[in-house]
Amino acid sequence: MNETISSTTTATNGNGKIGRIALKDIHSPADLKPCTLDDLTGIASEVRELLIDTCAKNGGHIGANLGVVELTLAIHHVFNAPKDKIIFDTSHQSYTHKILTGGRENFPTICKYPGGMTRFIVRGENPYDIWSAGHASTGLSGAMGMAEAAKHKNEPHQTVCVVGDSARSGGLAYEALNNIGYNQTDMVVILNDNKMGISPNVGAFHEYLKRLSSVSTDDRGRRNIGTIFEKLGFKYYGPIDGHNFDELVHHLNEIKQIKGPKILHVLTQKGKGVDYMERDKARWHEHAAFDIETGDPIKPNKVTVEGLAINTLMQLAEKDPTVVGLTAAMAAGTGMNKFGEKFPNRFYDVGIAEEHGVTFSAGLAAEGMKPFAAIYSPFLQRAFDEMMHDVSMMSLPVKFLIPKAAITGDGPTQGGILDLSYTRILPHFVVMAPKNELELQQMVKTAHAYDKGPIAIRYPKGSSTIEATPVDQLETIPIGKAELVKDGKDITLLAIGWMTQDAMKVADELQKKGISAAVINARFAKPLDEEMITQFARKTGKIITLEENTLVGGFGSAVLECLEKNNLSNIQVRRLGAADGYIPYDKPENIKKQFGMSVDDIVQTATKMVGK
Amino acid sequence: MNETISSTTTATNGNGKIGRIALKDIHSPADLKPCTLDDLTGIASEVRELLIDTCAKNGGHIGANLGVVELTLAIHHVFNAPKDKIIFDTSHQSYTHKILTGGRENFPTICKYPGGMTRFIVRGENPYDIWSAGHASTGLSGAMGMAEAAKHKNEPHQTVCVVGDSARSGGLAYEALNNIGYNQTDMVVILNDNKMGISPNVGAFHEYLKRLSSVSTDDRGRRNIGTIFEKLGFKYYGPIDGHNFDELVHHLNEIKQIKGPKILHVLTQKGKGVDYMERDKARWHEHAAFDIETGDPIKPNKVTVEGLAINTLMQLAEKDPTVVGLTAAMAAGTGMNKFGEKFPNRFYDVGIAEEHGVTFSAGLAAEGMKPFAAIYSPFLQRAFDEMMHDVSMMSLPVKFLIPKAAITGDGPTQGGILDLSYTRILPHFVVMAPKNELELQQMVKTAHAYDKGPIAIRYPKGSSTIEATPVDQLETIPIGKAELVKDGKDITLLAIGWMTQDAMKVADELQKKGISAAVINARFAKPLDEEMITQFARKTGKIITLEENTLVGGFGSAVLECLEKNNLSNIQVRRLGAADGYIPYDKPENIKKQFGMSVDDIVQTATKMVGK
Repeated sequence: MNETISSTTTATNGNGKIGRIALKDIHSPADLKPCTLDDLTGIASEVRELLIDTCAKNGGHIGANLGVVELTLAIHHVFNAPKDKIIFDTSHQSYTHKILTGGRENFPTICKYPGGMTRFIVRGENPYDIWSAGHASTGLSGAMGMAEAAKHKNEPHQTVCVVGDSARSGGLAYEALNNIGYNQTDMVVILNDNKMGISPNVGAFHEYLKRLSSVSTDDRGRRNIGTIFEKLGFKYYGPIDGHNFDELVHHLNEIKQIKGPKILHVLTQKGKGVDYMERDKARWHEHAAFDIETGDPIKPNKVTVEGLAINTLMQLAEKDPTVVGLTAAMAAGTGMNKFGEKFPNRFYDVGIAEEHGVTFSAGLAAEGMKPFAAIYSPFLQRAFDEMMHDVSMMSLPVKFLIPKAAITGDGPTQGGILDLSYTRILPHFVVMAPKNELELQQMVKTAHAYDKGPIAIRYPKGSSTIEATPVDQLETIPIGKAELVKDGKDITLLAIGWMTQDAMKVADELQKKGISAAVINARFAKPLDEEMITQFARKTGKIITLEENTLVGGFGSAVLECLEKNNLSNIQVRRLGAADGYIPYDKPENIKKQFGMSVDDIVQTATKMVGK
Repeated sequence: MNETISSTTTATNGNGKIGRIALKDIHSPADLKPCTLDDLTGIASEVRELLIDTCAKNGGHIGANLGVVELTLAIHHVFNAPKDKIIFDTSHQSYTHKILTGGRENFPTICKYPGGMTRFIVRGENPYDIWSAGHASTGLSGAMGMAEAAKHKNEPHQTVCVVGDSARSGGLAYEALNNIGYNQTDMVVILNDNKMGISPNVGAFHEYLKRLSSVSTDDRGRRNIGTIFEKLGFKYYGPIDGHNFDELVHHLNEIKQIKGPKILHVLTQKGKGVDYMERDKARWHEHAAFDIETGDPIKPNKVTVEGLAINTLMQLAEKDPTVVGLTAAMAAGTGMNKFGEKFPNRFYDVGIAEEHGVTFSAGLAAEGMKPFAAIYSPFLQRAFDEMMHDVSMMSLPVKFLIPKAAITGDGPTQGGILDLSYTRILPHFVVMAPKNELELQQMVKTAHAYDKGPIAIRYPKGSSTIEATPVDQLETIPIGKAELVKDGKDITLLAIGWMTQDAMKVADELQKKGISAAVINARFAKPLDEEMITQFARKTGKIITLEENTLVGGFGSAVLECLEKNNLSNIQVRRLGAADGYIPYDKPENIKKQFGMSVDDIVQTATKMVGK
């Protein structure tokens, strides 16, 4: 038994497992202090069971979290949160932390919105949750800030940042390592090295770590001085076995005593403890509800919206050898994995490195290739400067596929409600959003044909209502042309994206009330179809704009700008969309209701505007 | 003489210097092919003289460019542009390239706008200029794209990227290295290592290179296999002397033959050839016009707008130990160097790493410090995601000082006309812009006092019209309160920032025509002073908004949103600001004229709106 482990406690494990303190006894990290290694081993089993049972029902980041059960227990056993600052980067690997910091009883509600436990860390939810993180690679910089603050305030506490699961491939993490090493900031970095990120095999640094991991864990291996980290100014320890409490506790206690920046390299296994997850780690990083025995999904895979876009792209790529597919650690999520399987030589997964992905695409386009970069809306914003400086400024024909551009309900960091605002700021960009799955496929074909500059398609993610369409049956859409879905004379419902479907329902309801509403599917946030918009502004005098995007600078604002530009100052406009703020974890329909953009709400607003 | 150098040419050097081919004979890089090492040496002297003579008159990136004269000559001697792709990251080190690629005669016009030669590379200006780059760290990703495109197209040409002068500290460059190494992309990276970037001494990686540079350049040193680059999958060569043509030409010819990613580490000296520049490299990175003999500036340093902001901050920091100053390789340009001199322990220059700078600031703020991050408007946008995810989402009280937020005239990448649009998208942000130097200082005090969330001040850079004000004589400004500068009844001039000064001139002119214009200094782009704006909208019925920002999603759009929100649909609004597009190199007054926002233009617009 390790000498740092106390053996004075007498609690018994209700589960009948080895050890005397059980999970039910852990109400806060302080309760882990008296645990023996055996206790910790027993608790780890219980946590693992709870993780599997819960995620089998609710879905969640099961693979990622099964890999850090022992690591998280050891950290909370050795360090003193909340006095010591523990940051998870990204916080999708924080389930065990949540269970240990008072969340055990509530844990079965994780990922169930509304009301359920959030699946990422939200600063302030409890005293142990100090750093919100739904995007990757932010933890090291944040932890450095906290550690430097402790220095300025003369507070002696420890700062610990758990990095891993691909967070290190982001340039931000490198910038942080570079600065932490240079400043000799007093902090602990724990590198959770599970030999993969969300998508496998991206980046030379990852390959290097893989080679390093095969070094034995004897003293010579542990003290290997040839590592990148030491060159960056860190004291380096490891690699050690991240599922062995003896090693973990020993090294964490050791590292605690050392001043300056230090890194502990911990080898973990994604999906640890479940055979079928260990075998297919990429699939199990995050997963919907599943059958525990077999691993089969409860709801079988169906055709998805994002899959349709990639299907069209693959049909185009078959005839056009200049088509290249790119993603940034979102191969499965964007559907790009299928493209990669079919065209491995024309597929790039750059890892969590959206900035590089965008500028790399610009370089490809500069030399005549047709790169399609598929990056979720909330993550694409990390490449805002690159979209401006490397794509827009040179007007290079990069094609952006932007799924998850919608009110998604899975928290403030995962849904994309800013992209219409930040893409349309950029000169030369064409910004499209389809009304449905068929139009999405048409827009992919349109993007392929368009060669004058950058073009983006934003769309939701999820089950499709239709099957894939053969590409030769798809029409392309004239750039900047909206679609008049339904004529009308009393009011214009001017929608972009999927909201066009809601607008049609609204128009039907209004019809019953004797109100004649025109429905326009804008298709383009940039350039706007000024001709059709001004025509219907004049004709109906009243416009409701509809978008799944923030109302700050979004589609509705573009419409206001269009009316101002055309000197139409007497039009009554009402913009409906997401209020300025962060979207809570909830059902999308509840959120839309909250924003006054449910079908009923829109009917009411329209009725009031028409004065009936 | 090196065997790769031809000795068949017979041209004579008109300058009487060693060698037979002179600068006047170089009309394109092809003319460098027959040069002997002696020719190259003679041409280097001539180029250096031209650089010094020109920059002494026009200003420019003199220090940076003097360091790469030999390197650039050697590259164009060995490689075959434009067939081979040569990219400079960033392109502020491209003056010699410009001189060699047909720009010699026009070079004396560099930095003189309108009409003069651009000081950065603009893609398409000539066949040798293939990659626009005014922001750092983009070159490697772009070059990788071009190199991969060459592979897909089966074109055998070479791709060369010159990285240096701090570009490598950006995370984007790391992401690129990581991916180039992993993909084994066939390209040449030339690391221009001048032992500093724009600001000195930032980053552990930089320190590591410094240690590496002290290794002798014998075979053992050259083949040093312990480097980071080899771990990342590159073949590494060097370090070699970047001012020695023999070494340069030899190694470039050697590296050309090798497949895959390779890096040549070249040691150069910033300001090479001018004693006073070699001694004070940071000052001479970029410099205004100067006396060649003494190095004294032609126009002596005066109080600057940006200096006033830092002066206020320093007065506040004297009394408040929680104030921390931060910049990202813009210490001199933002005035933060003064803060660093006075409070070295509370000052961070993170290097070209805006993303880390912002998230690090968030960490500091999370633990009770008051970080002031001073980052130019055009560079801050690289941290858009971090401003959202790490600052806005947690509503952390980070204070942003944003100079160069104006129509600057020094090209599309250096002026900041997007920041009002992209900052106001972010929930919880307060976004201010002062009308003049006094109000700027008041806003710094206001930002210091504000603790509810993030707050930003955007302002121009340049000579101040006033001296610094003692901080206890500065009033703070109520958040979200505009200032009524002049009452009026016919029309409202609603200005933000320095445009308020123009608005006053316009009002004076209008007065002469019998038009009574109200002038409002908005002060806040977010939150808007809705009360005052709606009051004057109702009172005058006519509003002209004025901003040095894009009209897409900017301040004027915020005003339109405000009117819509308040159901004021019958107000005549005209928004004046930067048109959607990139700002050319020109005098700011010419650009404003072009945008219809000169005082005369505004007077005309207002007169027409009032109908007189």
